[in-house]
Amino acid sequence: MPQNYLGEFYSFLRFPSVSTDDEYKANLVECADWLVNKLGSIGLATQLVPTRGHPIVWARNKHQPGRRTVLIYGHYDVQPPDPLELWDSPPFEPVLKDGYVFARGATDNKGQILSHILGIQETIEQNGDLPVNVHLVIEGEEEVGSVSLPGFLNENRDALKCDVAVVSDTGMIARQTPTLSYGLRGVTAMEIKVTGPKMDLHSGVFGGAVANPITALAQLLAILHDRDGRVAIAGFYDRVKPLEDWEREAWRKLPVDGDKLILEETGVPQLFGEAGYNSIERIWARPTAEINGIGGGYQGKGTKTVIASHAFAKLTFRLVPEQRADEILELAKAHLRKNLPKGVTMEITTGHSGPWYITDPHSQLGEAAQRALRKAFDREVALIREGGSIPIVSQFREILGIETLLMGLALPDCRAHSPNENFPLENFEGGIRLNKAVLQELA
Amino acid sequence: MPQNYLGEFYSFLRFPSVSTDDEYKANLVECADWLVNKLGSIGLATQLVPTRGHPIVWARNKHQPGRRTVLIYGHYDVQPPDPLELWDSPPFEPVLKDGYVFARGATDNKGQILSHILGIQETIEQNGDLPVNVHLVIEGEEEVGSVSLPGFLNENRDALKCDVAVVSDTGMIARQTPTLSYGLRGVTAMEIKVTGPKMDLHSGVFGGAVANPITALAQLLAILHDRDGRVAIAGFYDRVKPLEDWEREAWRKLPVDGDKLILEETGVPQLFGEAGYNSIERIWARPTAEINGIGGGYQGKGTKTVIASHAFAKLTFRLVPEQRADEILELAKAHLRKNLPKGVTMEITTGHSGPWYITDPHSQLGEAAQRALRKAFDREVALIREGGSIPIVSQFREILGIETLLMGLALPDCRAHSPNENFPLENFEGGIRLNKAVLQELA
Repeated sequence: MPQNYLGEFYSFLRFPSVSTDDEYKANLVECADWLVNKLGSIGLATQLVPTRGHPIVWARNKHQPGRRTVLIYGHYDVQPPDPLELWDSPPFEPVLKDGYVFARGATDNKGQILSHILGIQETIEQNGDLPVNVHLVIEGEEEVGSVSLPGFLNENRDALKCDVAVVSDTGMIARQTPTLSYGLRGVTAMEIKVTGPKMDLHSGVFGGAVANPITALAQLLAILHDRDGRVAIAGFYDRVKPLEDWEREAWRKLPVDGDKLILEETGVPQLFGEAGYNSIERIWARPTAEINGIGGGYQGKGTKTVIASHAFAKLTFRLVPEQRADEILELAKAHLRKNLPKGVTMEITTGHSGPWYITDPHSQLGEAAQRALRKAFDREVALIREGGSIPIVSQFREILGIETLLMGLALPDCRAHSPNENFPLENFEGGIRLNKAVLQELA
Repeated sequence: MPQNYLGEFYSFLRFPSVSTDDEYKANLVECADWLVNKLGSIGLATQLVPTRGHPIVWARNKHQPGRRTVLIYGHYDVQPPDPLELWDSPPFEPVLKDGYVFARGATDNKGQILSHILGIQETIEQNGDLPVNVHLVIEGEEEVGSVSLPGFLNENRDALKCDVAVVSDTGMIARQTPTLSYGLRGVTAMEIKVTGPKMDLHSGVFGGAVANPITALAQLLAILHDRDGRVAIAGFYDRVKPLEDWEREAWRKLPVDGDKLILEETGVPQLFGEAGYNSIERIWARPTAEINGIGGGYQGKGTKTVIASHAFAKLTFRLVPEQRADEILELAKAHLRKNLPKGVTMEITTGHSGPWYITDPHSQLGEAAQRALRKAFDREVALIREGGSIPIVSQFREILGIETLLMGLALPDCRAHSPNENFPLENFEGGIRLNKAVLQELA
């Protein structure tokens, strides 16, 4: 790897491009300008697209008819560095230690997107052109929900017409294990508010004669699951596609012990989940009902003898193919209403939904991605799904009509979003090779 | 009623003797000094007893051997007046409207204790002496848990030796209905903390493979009761004394519709409680398990897809004769431990306990109290119990070995602790008559 690559990586990392905090607005613009210059210098036609939030960097090579068109997506914004005191070195002063670059954004996503840029640069330097038509779209709002991206995609739908998206913003299942993520869970949200008396009551003066809203809420939440960890909402699993045999077998052969990993990372006293599935299957391929928050009554120190007027809980459901968010919300509402304890009323507010995603890793595009990953890392490719949701993948499908190849370069211990975020140089170099290989394979 | 009584009542009410806020410390001392002067002026030997907090006013007539000794208790401290904007007139500028005096402390407890003082004054003016030996103990820390009172009682146990305590700091069941409260519920407290992962987890990345502490806590809290509102802890009711027939009958004849009152006051959609009892029985004579507060995970606006590291709930149990607080806590702990869902750990912290209280309204002292109430108000006496706890009653029993006659003068709509607290002059005058009658009857 040429020595100036590391210098460029450091320059990119030094911008405190924290999108969640308006204080950094100018830093995001500076960071985007740096990208525009960089992309222009390697021969791409580049523009800075203003949005209501932070600008989008959009670069293209000279498109030629008859070639595949590939959209490479990344983001230059980063998470806030707090808590600062837990960093071993300042978050925006990158340092190299034992082959790892430590800085906010090193993995998420500056290291990964820069490796693609440098791969493009090398290909152009060596061949004078890329083997495919390329759109590079690098946004500055990924950490705040990619709010401007759908508008950008819609407005430029024709210009952005392409065959596939390539994204390196997910994880490698283990070090030196090239990984293709071909599925994501969806998500949908609701909030439950249970109300009893019109004001908080003295539990001595009224206790026993009125229903306690916290008790009622607990009784509702307790029957979201059976004791075997299955969601107990009638119809919840009706549309769930069973895991395919090849998937279960492939996942069992992965070079990770999912159960052990989760025990160690989370520190839970024991694993718990839906009977009949191991941890990896539970996270990647099974739907959930999670209570993300609960509150009601007195939460301060000591005791306050009060019967709360109301209590609330925030829920999200993780969805898998072929579940439908709206239907799940309706089933959940019906379940809660049917089981509402006496003496209280309930309000349910539904939140936003994001669809699940699945693509066939054995499709023509999927096989090309696998060949590229093998070529770049010289190892067998891990085919995985992930438990989280990545909204841009759905946006690419819905707005541009394309599949996304998720070829992540983040290691499990990269500490994205946490202090001491880091990215190994071997993955930085691997990313450069991967970009060259995937454009070649997709050509 | 002599006109200067109202002037003295107003003077007493004008002291902002808010014990919960150190800012008012000097006002409490001024208020106590006013009492010392007043009690001295009517011929009682009075002293101001310093404590770590606010001083106690202690006054005696000249005790004579062979007479009954009566301790009359009250407090000169008041609740904070907030929220100020909800008062129709300033809380420390008393006004008379339609026969009611409006001011903070009007009912709780200045109006009630002053009526006793004026009763004593009238008796001394008329007879030169009281028919019994009297201790007047008026503390300044009732609204902050009477923290100094047990020390005062213990230090002066011999000097305070007496036969019975008389307290007007509870309620009348209805207007013009003299009321003797002969029972109180006890209380004991615990806090439950359920822990799963060592830190908050992303519910996409881990959801499904680890137990959710909020779900586990809800499942625990849901089985505190059965669906009929009975506490489902094994052994919880073992020591509960059944309601006596005369009590149920007496309560049914009270001039109040308890169910209707509670529906109106609380605004609950319907009453709910232990099957087989009406609201008054549930509150006065049946034990409860109440969740006073719950918290865990994300409680802000919108959605955060997190699996919380832990969740907690604050519980209190209201206890009735002959339940024992320590035993109930142990039964509850055993119940929770036995039912702890998989995948989480639990810590239980127990809080302080206050015992229940019951005295026989048909004892010699009880009958004397009833005669005095009848004499003062010329109506049949309501014999009631109350759902709350009054720690001083237990302290009098434990430290001085005496029963307490709870002869409250507060009306249901007196707004004690709330804006627009008020006390009717008819109860002020009734309290003066009551004091004269009860000292006579106890003689």
